[in-house]
Amino acid sequence: MKTILASAAVAALGTGAFAQDTKVIGVSIPAATHGWAGGMNFHAQEAVERLEAVYPDLDFVLATASDPGKQVNDIEDMVATRNISALVVLPFESEPLTGPVQSVAESGVWVTVVDRGLSVDGIEDLYVAGDNPGFGRVSGEYMVSKMPDGGKIVALRGIPTTIDNERVAGFEAAIEGSGIEIIDMEHGNWNRDDSFNVMQDFLQKHEEIDAVWASDDDMAVGVLAAIEAAGRDDIQFVLGGAGMKEMVKRVMDGDSMIPADVTYPPSMIATAIELTAVGMTSTAPVSGTFTIGSVLITPENAEQFYYPDSPF
Amino acid sequence: MKTILASAAVAALGTGAFAQDTKVIGVSIPAATHGWAGGMNFHAQEAVERLEAVYPDLDFVLATASDPGKQVNDIEDMVATRNISALVVLPFESEPLTGPVQSVAESGVWVTVVDRGLSVDGIEDLYVAGDNPGFGRVSGEYMVSKMPDGGKIVALRGIPTTIDNERVAGFEAAIEGSGIEIIDMEHGNWNRDDSFNVMQDFLQKHEEIDAVWASDDDMAVGVLAAIEAAGRDDIQFVLGGAGMKEMVKRVMDGDSMIPADVTYPPSMIATAIELTAVGMTSTAPVSGTFTIGSVLITPENAEQFYYPDSPF
Repeated sequence: MKTILASAAVAALGTGAFAQDTKVIGVSIPAATHGWAGGMNFHAQEAVERLEAVYPDLDFVLATASDPGKQVNDIEDMVATRNISALVVLPFESEPLTGPVQSVAESGVWVTVVDRGLSVDGIEDLYVAGDNPGFGRVSGEYMVSKMPDGGKIVALRGIPTTIDNERVAGFEAAIEGSGIEIIDMEHGNWNRDDSFNVMQDFLQKHEEIDAVWASDDDMAVGVLAAIEAAGRDDIQFVLGGAGMKEMVKRVMDGDSMIPADVTYPPSMIATAIELTAVGMTSTAPVSGTFTIGSVLITPENAEQFYYPDSPF
Repeated sequence: MKTILASAAVAALGTGAFAQDTKVIGVSIPAATHGWAGGMNFHAQEAVERLEAVYPDLDFVLATASDPGKQVNDIEDMVATRNISALVVLPFESEPLTGPVQSVAESGVWVTVVDRGLSVDGIEDLYVAGDNPGFGRVSGEYMVSKMPDGGKIVALRGIPTTIDNERVAGFEAAIEGSGIEIIDMEHGNWNRDDSFNVMQDFLQKHEEIDAVWASDDDMAVGVLAAIEAAGRDDIQFVLGGAGMKEMVKRVMDGDSMIPADVTYPPSMIATAIELTAVGMTSTAPVSGTFTIGSVLITPENAEQFYYPDSPF
């Protein structure tokens, strides 16, 4: 049934032009160049297939771009040749996409922007994004619940950005007064290799570390490799973040080194596509800002966050 | 092709009534005791009807309450006798609903809270609310665009609350430096009669008033009656807010006294129900906070905000 539905949906992409009240929604996203983007592509495709099956009056055109120039071309093409009623866009970069998306909005097309904002405020009708302070807070609250008597932790940060600052500030506020002490913190740049090196350095400097806030699942992979290479057994657990399937699987399996994870879901693209479809098919207002919450993944609920078919 | 797809989709979903995985969504809202609540009831009913038609696997139970005690009973009944998977609740009052809704959330039922928050943070999975600073800002920006050379206005405020303060602050920030001067401002308490009295007083005190920011459609009704009773013709226009159908109709008809309106839509209940349904039928994450934007209604777009069958 799944396969039939999927191919029917793909076939239907071509027929929209003949029905008068069919609305076309364009979805423009970066190509699957890394883990999170891979997951995002998977969930975008899944949302399009689901919605084509649910709403015969909606057609979708999904384009992936490996650079901003290609993404601008994709969007102009959707307007020129597919007469889209709405555009869902996750900008490759803010600056080069701002002007082109503004033109689309000014032509009367509904615009939903996801995750990465444009450089000018107020262009989009709907903005769907993650909750960075909340991501840090949920991570910190978990640490506190897991270490009721406090302890010494090390922390890895992402690429120096507002996003990273908000996450760290949320985390620090949540652990304040708990007896948990961050004895060292460095940028692992959301990168496995960088994080391996940072963690190797931490392990050399500190004889006792109770736990690690890796703050990202890719960084957690590097951290785990460094711990294993060093043969250290003082570290009780590592907390990553995002919802990478390998990490969710370890949580689901009760792995004591990865007892939990915190979502920053690439599936937010699906939420943006679903909400745009609600706007096209109902009278419910969907202008505004949807801040998708970061949720704690534990062995109890991990199954509902595990997508074995996704690359991420 | 379309027809085939449609029936394939319906067939795929249509087994739901007999399948064990039918999910029930409870919707608990205050009864239609005043205009905005009347509109909210209308849009809740419409959303439930639409979604029952779209998703045969979803069932809904909608209950309206004229006091908080009845609302608590409704919700307990939905859990006890209907085995709801999700609850969408617009609390009659925050305090008496907080404990009962918290119990529902702790039992594992998804909770969506609309408009009026609970007294304890973090109970709900999803919070859907209006944008009060944005409501003020959009109203102020319209005033500026309508009065490019500035002018003297009077303003009416709602019941003294955080909501009212945020709206007024947003308005004042938007008109700053524009040459628009608020020569008088009083509380009309979101009430027609109070606003009639306030406006009557303004008209006696001020010989020349260029425009009125009534900030609410009910208050605008009182303001218009006072202007008419006084026979004054110096006032060029009145700007209300919310999206009452009589006001939207006047905008649509090009009435120069009501040239625009600003939404604070009672249909936000429909958005909350739709998003909850997305959560029950897809893998898209819908935890978080959706702040529904306030949109400017002008003669160009008024038709899409006009619901002749709604009581509001």
